[in-house]
Amino acid sequence: MSADTYQPLTIDSLPQRLGALPVLTDRLGDAAGWRAREVGDGNLNLVFIVEGAGNGAVVKQALPYVRLVGESWPLPLRRSFFEAIALDRQARRDPGAVPEVWHFDEPQALIVMEFLTPHIILRRSLIDGRRHEGVGAFLGRFCARTAFRGSDLALPAADRKADVALFAGNVELCDITENLVFTDPYFDAKLNHFTSALAPLVARLRADGALKIAAQELKADFTSCAETLMHGDLHTGSVMVHGSDAKVIDPEFAAYGPFGFDVGMLISNFLMAHLSQPGHCNDADFGEWLLDETAAIWTAFRAEFTRLWRTERRGMLYPDALFDAQGDELAAEAARLRLMDRIRSQAVGVCGVELHRRIVGLAHNADFETIADEGTRAACEARALELGRILAVQRGHVNMDDVIELARTLNGRDCL
Amino acid sequence: MSADTYQPLTIDSLPQRLGALPVLTDRLGDAAGWRAREVGDGNLNLVFIVEGAGNGAVVKQALPYVRLVGESWPLPLRRSFFEAIALDRQARRDPGAVPEVWHFDEPQALIVMEFLTPHIILRRSLIDGRRHEGVGAFLGRFCARTAFRGSDLALPAADRKADVALFAGNVELCDITENLVFTDPYFDAKLNHFTSALAPLVARLRADGALKIAAQELKADFTSCAETLMHGDLHTGSVMVHGSDAKVIDPEFAAYGPFGFDVGMLISNFLMAHLSQPGHCNDADFGEWLLDETAAIWTAFRAEFTRLWRTERRGMLYPDALFDAQGDELAAEAARLRLMDRIRSQAVGVCGVELHRRIVGLAHNADFETIADEGTRAACEARALELGRILAVQRGHVNMDDVIELARTLNGRDCL
Repeated sequence: MSADTYQPLTIDSLPQRLGALPVLTDRLGDAAGWRAREVGDGNLNLVFIVEGAGNGAVVKQALPYVRLVGESWPLPLRRSFFEAIALDRQARRDPGAVPEVWHFDEPQALIVMEFLTPHIILRRSLIDGRRHEGVGAFLGRFCARTAFRGSDLALPAADRKADVALFAGNVELCDITENLVFTDPYFDAKLNHFTSALAPLVARLRADGALKIAAQELKADFTSCAETLMHGDLHTGSVMVHGSDAKVIDPEFAAYGPFGFDVGMLISNFLMAHLSQPGHCNDADFGEWLLDETAAIWTAFRAEFTRLWRTERRGMLYPDALFDAQGDELAAEAARLRLMDRIRSQAVGVCGVELHRRIVGLAHNADFETIADEGTRAACEARALELGRILAVQRGHVNMDDVIELARTLNGRDCL
Repeated sequence: MSADTYQPLTIDSLPQRLGALPVLTDRLGDAAGWRAREVGDGNLNLVFIVEGAGNGAVVKQALPYVRLVGESWPLPLRRSFFEAIALDRQARRDPGAVPEVWHFDEPQALIVMEFLTPHIILRRSLIDGRRHEGVGAFLGRFCARTAFRGSDLALPAADRKADVALFAGNVELCDITENLVFTDPYFDAKLNHFTSALAPLVARLRADGALKIAAQELKADFTSCAETLMHGDLHTGSVMVHGSDAKVIDPEFAAYGPFGFDVGMLISNFLMAHLSQPGHCNDADFGEWLLDETAAIWTAFRAEFTRLWRTERRGMLYPDALFDAQGDELAAEAARLRLMDRIRSQAVGVCGVELHRRIVGLAHNADFETIADEGTRAACEARALELGRILAVQRGHVNMDDVIELARTLNGRDCL
């Protein structure tokens, strides 16, 4: 079943190669009756859905290069290892929030996991104008639980240090983020592309010293502020939904980084869903619903982080001995408010640069890309670029209510 | 020579056990003619000076426990591995600043290195009132070179991440700093001790919420802000001097941490030398000379960091493509000023908590401990405690000129 030499699966070879795995035969029956299809629509991997005996499984296999670009951009298979470990950590820190992993084959860079059905990718569903009540709160709680429980606020110090060492090996995936999110949008990098009407605005961004400094300060945080295990790529394409049920997928970019990274990137992608509404034929209230869910991400993050601070703060940071045990609970609350403020600032900043890179960098978002009319698309994208600039530069002075209000205001404005 | 089973050396066994090492016999001649003596006066290890044929060597061997406390506090031998690796990194980043390593025996946790003679420990020399011209500037440059060249400003990203992973294993030594520097002074920890007249002042510190928050924020930086490879224990007892020649020793606490940690701890220990002057019989100008050297540490740090920023910024942070290559050198300078300001704030904060832990924690400084008159000692220590509180809490708003001026002013004040 598991040859030591890596071989990409195909629809045809899959039943033969995985047909002896009990975790699959127990659920899907004999491999002779399996039906496999390849559904990978992401930027990096092969993804198969295998069905049989009325059940299904997902088989995700890394390719030794970036699928979006091709074999000219090699990418190590071990990202699959980091994804499997991250799924394990996330499942323990927020039970039920990620798909169950049934099998991991390291040499084949292959994860067999729960088939989420009839779930679809949240980004796709939002483009189609579907409401998923509570998805913002679910995601905010996920960010808070993984952030808090992966940090020195909760873990034994030696456990976090061991995980920092482990995930420091995810070099190439971090390199992608370091370049594509924080750097490439701000100069004429080879892989950049954008709607041509944006050219004057893009030139202005690249001439904005304060913005470039902000992006590099956020990058320095990303790379050296090892506060917690991030998902690392938490956008609306990394969430599967059906009705009000949601799961977070695809943590192969997992690495140690700042508390505010995941929640900031997520909020950014919700804002892009909102800012792309003029290009989609959804009902008029849908944009407001999106802003409500965006606000709910932060509200839930803040509430859950606060709850965990008060009930699960058993790590080495801000120990009871200095606060509660001295009858000084209020000082611990003050410490929390200061930390929350720093996380907010990180998140707002990340939100800003994510808005830029999805419009002027390599990897664009379907929210905008599916707007056929180029003029409409450019108008939407220009608003997102302006919003991103304000958020990145003013991250120390902008709260989440401001973020929502700015996004709402921009939708009526000509930024081109 | 190198049995696999660890055995502490003794004066008697050393020549027999190391007598076959060419790095020693080449320099010291046949082991039959060696003279060995144990000189370890630190808190952790065995240190031998071995002499023969007119030359000498130092043999430093880790003990499996904390020497200062005894076998009840075990400490892993692998700290010797981290020390050897750190000495290698430091020698490459600031050539000539650390002793040459001639041999490392991992199972025996033993480093054979250059014998610095007639050098003595800087702290001892300062207590005796000796001037070492230029020592502040030397140490400031050392901090700048090791900080800059160990970071993402200079290293290839993968190299820094590999070193972050490596040094994440130095768990127990980091744990000592995390507890003894940032936590224990602020509650009634078992190993604390202090001059009894300080009790009311210590109680005030422990009741100061803002101070405890500051200490924990600095601790969070120490443990998760993996900006560069720190020495980790850079006080005046980790520097050997003779006249104007100086070397930095003992980096077994090496770990990745914030840019400002080493320079802040060092400045703190110079300030303690200054604040202990009323208890020593040195000439009246010596205290001012100490403040001049303290100021020189920061001046040299800042100048050298700036020089390296302008000439060696080849890492992934603040790349040329965003700044100089767009004709925007001034934005890179603005970025540097912001970073220097953040480093200053880190350093001032660390300086503050280091002042506290050396007076109310486990490991005290000879600067104060050698003051026989308890009243004089308490008066000096009280000033240091007050200074430490201001620096830790107000670290965002205090520059290095302020630090020097505050220390000078305090020397005439009754803080008890």
